[in-house]
Amino acid sequence: MVKPAQGESVLSRVVRIFETFGPDTPALRVTDIARRADLPVATASRLVEELVGHGWLRRDPDRRVRVGVRLWELASRASPTLGLREAAMPFMEDLHAVVGHHTQLAVLEDREVLFVERLSAPGAVVNVTRVAGRLPLHASSSGLVLLAHAPADLQEHVLTGPLDAFRRTTLTDPARLRRFLADVRRTGYAFCAGFIDEETTGIAVPLRGPGGDVVAALSVIVPNDRNARTQIPALQAAARGISRAMGNFSH
Amino acid sequence: MVKPAQGESVLSRVVRIFETFGPDTPALRVTDIARRADLPVATASRLVEELVGHGWLRRDPDRRVRVGVRLWELASRASPTLGLREAAMPFMEDLHAVVGHHTQLAVLEDREVLFVERLSAPGAVVNVTRVAGRLPLHASSSGLVLLAHAPADLQEHVLTGPLDAFRRTTLTDPARLRRFLADVRRTGYAFCAGFIDEETTGIAVPLRGPGGDVVAALSVIVPNDRNARTQIPALQAAARGISRAMGNFSH
Repeated sequence: MVKPAQGESVLSRVVRIFETFGPDTPALRVTDIARRADLPVATASRLVEELVGHGWLRRDPDRRVRVGVRLWELASRASPTLGLREAAMPFMEDLHAVVGHHTQLAVLEDREVLFVERLSAPGAVVNVTRVAGRLPLHASSSGLVLLAHAPADLQEHVLTGPLDAFRRTTLTDPARLRRFLADVRRTGYAFCAGFIDEETTGIAVPLRGPGGDVVAALSVIVPNDRNARTQIPALQAAARGISRAMGNFSH
Repeated sequence: MVKPAQGESVLSRVVRIFETFGPDTPALRVTDIARRADLPVATASRLVEELVGHGWLRRDPDRRVRVGVRLWELASRASPTLGLREAAMPFMEDLHAVVGHHTQLAVLEDREVLFVERLSAPGAVVNVTRVAGRLPLHASSSGLVLLAHAPADLQEHVLTGPLDAFRRTTLTDPARLRRFLADVRRTGYAFCAGFIDEETTGIAVPLRGPGGDVVAALSVIVPNDRNARTQIPALQAAARGISRAMGNFSH
């Protein structure tokens, strides 16, 4: 789409440098960055040096490099998720206080679920996700809600693509997944007992933006027992409150 | 420090493009970006196009451009503040439930206070800050705690520099500010009645990392009345819990 120019390759290299960092690799040596980003060490070193100068990366005393707080600030203060998070947090806190387990906010990003906020109590049940973490759309309650309300072409892409099994309970059969998505649309929630972990149940509901379209999923991760279903009304009520509050934020 | 090369100027332009976005300007036209970043429209247009391709920016249906969720994700999943936030949030929730007013987490960044997390109840008192927002160090309780524990050269820089007044109560006299900072170190908290807004009191305490150094400030914004001081013990207890929890996170 864009004409090749000298700037593009620099920017691609910078993107690759940032892709080398993750939750398990928050601090890296320049040689590791170069190897992971497939760049000559001299190139990586020069770009890292300049990114440190801009505060987008920072150096530990042991010379290892991390993502800088400045980049988080730039990304956060104008992020499309900030208005969503600000609208959602008061309701998420109430929900979390009542349910007493993980309460999460997730959006659809690049055909995956991206978790943008999570409230957790010490001692809560197992939860594989984390803030800024991802899961495939068909695997979790949040993903199934987002997929159920996604554009038809994205649904078809997922339904006709490989459906990897996380556990025995993962919806890997396209016909069963299609029925599940129809149920999510009909009932207004996704109830996923033991989908990610045998011990837990994920329950997710859609969050609608001011235009009525689904913009996020609100979910709780509770113990996989017969009380789990009793959380659904609280979750649905919180979702309505957030949707109403979002009308007060600019988007 | 670095030798000029063709890559550097591209990166500087990209940094300038991202600096044009903010809480009040989350969506901009390319011509506005070009003007604010002092770039030719063709250059801005080409870089914006490439950044959209990488998901670092995104385009609204009306062609306006926003910061992309992908950049937030990259910045968040490896951010030095993520471990801090994860350790702090359960305690901040408890504190927020008890105090019933804004509960905030802030770090020192570029000689300013950067707020990295905030819990607010609907109907809470006035609060000028927001997530990813900044304040000068001498103006608020969080800043005064961070300044009181900052390296000596940063303290001298602030004490000998201009001390802008936000309100009548702002500490603009260097001798008074120096005494205030000594009090913060001695008492273990900054108590700022009416510093930012006549109706509110900010109270902040230091959060110590695993090495014992102050890495953040925990604060509450409560009504400016005689009950404000009763919140100090809850704040100090939460800070101790967060510091202990931080020992369990990798940094």
